[in-house]
Amino acid sequence: MNYEDYFRRQLDGLRREGRYRVFADLERKAGAFPRAAHHTPSGEREVTVWCSNDYLGMGQHPKVLAAMHEALDRCGAGAGGTRNIAGTNHYHVLLEAELADLHGKQAALLFNSGYVSNWTTLSTLASRMPGCVILSDELNHASMIEGMKHSRCATRVFRHNDVADLRSKLSDLDRDAPKLIAFEAVYSMDGDIAPIADICDVADEHGALTYLDEVHATGLYGPRGGGISDREGLSDRLTVIEGTLAKAFGVIGGYITGSHTVCDFVRSFASGFIFSSALPPAVAAGALTSIRHLKASSHERERHQDRVATLRRKLDQAGVQHLDNPSHIVPVMVRDPVLCKEISDTLLDRYGIYVQPINYPTVARGTERLRITPSPLHSDADIDALVTALSEIWAEVGLARAA
Amino acid sequence: MNYEDYFRRQLDGLRREGRYRVFADLERKAGAFPRAAHHTPSGEREVTVWCSNDYLGMGQHPKVLAAMHEALDRCGAGAGGTRNIAGTNHYHVLLEAELADLHGKQAALLFNSGYVSNWTTLSTLASRMPGCVILSDELNHASMIEGMKHSRCATRVFRHNDVADLRSKLSDLDRDAPKLIAFEAVYSMDGDIAPIADICDVADEHGALTYLDEVHATGLYGPRGGGISDREGLSDRLTVIEGTLAKAFGVIGGYITGSHTVCDFVRSFASGFIFSSALPPAVAAGALTSIRHLKASSHERERHQDRVATLRRKLDQAGVQHLDNPSHIVPVMVRDPVLCKEISDTLLDRYGIYVQPINYPTVARGTERLRITPSPLHSDADIDALVTALSEIWAEVGLARAA
Repeated sequence: MNYEDYFRRQLDGLRREGRYRVFADLERKAGAFPRAAHHTPSGEREVTVWCSNDYLGMGQHPKVLAAMHEALDRCGAGAGGTRNIAGTNHYHVLLEAELADLHGKQAALLFNSGYVSNWTTLSTLASRMPGCVILSDELNHASMIEGMKHSRCATRVFRHNDVADLRSKLSDLDRDAPKLIAFEAVYSMDGDIAPIADICDVADEHGALTYLDEVHATGLYGPRGGGISDREGLSDRLTVIEGTLAKAFGVIGGYITGSHTVCDFVRSFASGFIFSSALPPAVAAGALTSIRHLKASSHERERHQDRVATLRRKLDQAGVQHLDNPSHIVPVMVRDPVLCKEISDTLLDRYGIYVQPINYPTVARGTERLRITPSPLHSDADIDALVTALSEIWAEVGLARAA
Repeated sequence: MNYEDYFRRQLDGLRREGRYRVFADLERKAGAFPRAAHHTPSGEREVTVWCSNDYLGMGQHPKVLAAMHEALDRCGAGAGGTRNIAGTNHYHVLLEAELADLHGKQAALLFNSGYVSNWTTLSTLASRMPGCVILSDELNHASMIEGMKHSRCATRVFRHNDVADLRSKLSDLDRDAPKLIAFEAVYSMDGDIAPIADICDVADEHGALTYLDEVHATGLYGPRGGGISDREGLSDRLTVIEGTLAKAFGVIGGYITGSHTVCDFVRSFASGFIFSSALPPAVAAGALTSIRHLKASSHERERHQDRVATLRRKLDQAGVQHLDNPSHIVPVMVRDPVLCKEISDTLLDRYGIYVQPINYPTVARGTERLRITPSPLHSDADIDALVTALSEIWAEVGLARAA
């Protein structure tokens, strides 16, 4: 077998489908977000980033950077081991306590990424409860799907955000079987929000555990930034709330929160936790500071929502259609992978605006889009420049306008 | 079902077996490694760490910390997205080029941890080649095993480091089936080293890909720190060399190196790569500096080997048995989980020496041990203090001495 040739042909297939990914080589500029230097073969050029998940710009917050500098000087670069073998640093302990408090839970557990927290927690919980059946929203994130697959448990997929379908699927199951409902608060690509209270009601009726992914909501919603479950006063009804430190909190890492027992169970049995080196102390220190800041300050959340509303209004005025939703995510639909990539290239090359095209497998084929994420740091002028650029391109490529 | 009660009973089972893990809450002290503050309910206390995987103390190297400080000020805390969506930073690009060069390969690809690099690369390569059969050393790391399981491919486990058994298992397979041999350079817990050249010979005979995990060797062996394959001039014979930035390089993260095509294939198809936020720019900057330093300087490697030899000699003089091996890992065998934990507690409480007990599932039951990792920063006095402590404890608990 000629492996190189085989791999090459698979990559050629991606190119033919227009979904071969080219990474934009960026240099984010602390103090000047959302500006970044774009490195290209022909040199560097300043661009405005419109698709970052550093939703609030906390990645450049002076308090966050100061905390990271201090921890670097104090504890060094890395943690030096797995959490069990020399790698637990006092900053991890403080951060886990802070996360538990953020979600009103007894305990928390850190992972190297949100992907790992979803994958390893779902696979561990489900696979360690004999006969467990997972109920999974059909639009759950890849990390959750991979975790459920890895558990090898029976999985029933319910229609997206459809409580009646979830109830019906639960009714078919053995009353005494362990059950786990896995869903998200804000769905990343469409920006819609789950009916959390209703799902918890159904879970209670059927004696199911609930696992809620809040990665696109923590820091952004709720009086203290505890996510949609915080905003709606539902934290105590969920078994596990999972989140990330890489989006609104601006650093890196994932976590779960829950009872002492459930966190200790995952801590003690999860391969993806046990056998990974711990996050650097400076990362934990930065996240800790970011969370504490956003617990006390709603300014960033308010400004964020204002920027989102302003962008939507101006897109509407220009007739550029976007998917309506109750969150901060503004999906501008293109529905063709090749055109989506072309528009993104034009935005970057002609206008210095960076919005990555979102193609399959991140979204379903035929729903390719520009996923725009305004931040508190995008000015009125930035919004106008974006809307003008999209409007000009829409005219050029002949994309339909709203009435 | 009472889930809390179920989880609690599982945890009680761990306690009964003496393998419930208690994490040491440490505060590493940059500039004073291997010293750390141990946080306990009764206050802080200075300890000497003897079980870190920051093997060379690069986690406190002034050049590494300076690079991280600079990148923090320049680019901020986090990367702001996945590699594909706003998260590729110029430091990632530089680091991947440096890693490719380190291993004499065309390309490299970064992951959030060594665990993720093994899991996601093995599962992607194997599952994407229809009919692929994996040949796996029986002592491969958990992250590799989980990746192979996740691929759902047929896996044949060959006896540890046994080339004849590998050849025999390969001979049984369909000549035309894709084959992938997965093994490690230095095995973490026993410290023994794979017969890499022989395994490559067998791979060539049978047309198999080779995947070598060098996480406990990169930075430590070879004229430029490229690992055992670098030391033995074998880099070009391996399809994929995998490594970590969290051990000898002192920071966090994992990577693979290989041909442009194989790295691009994993980049383009691996869920665990595509859907994870990228490592912070400062992490990439620190790792880049650490690798460059260890490419040019052999001082740390020489001093490291000297410390290992000195510790072994003094353990021998004291009659404290340790597993013989050709690497830097010094396993002092206890062979009982409860006693292993007791000895570790005594070392910490009475002597201020921290060596985590290593119990199942990290090692097989009955092979529980203290895994001691000398660094260039452990002084003669540190070694004497450790050997004296072990010798006194050995006398107390009645563990057998060497002749």
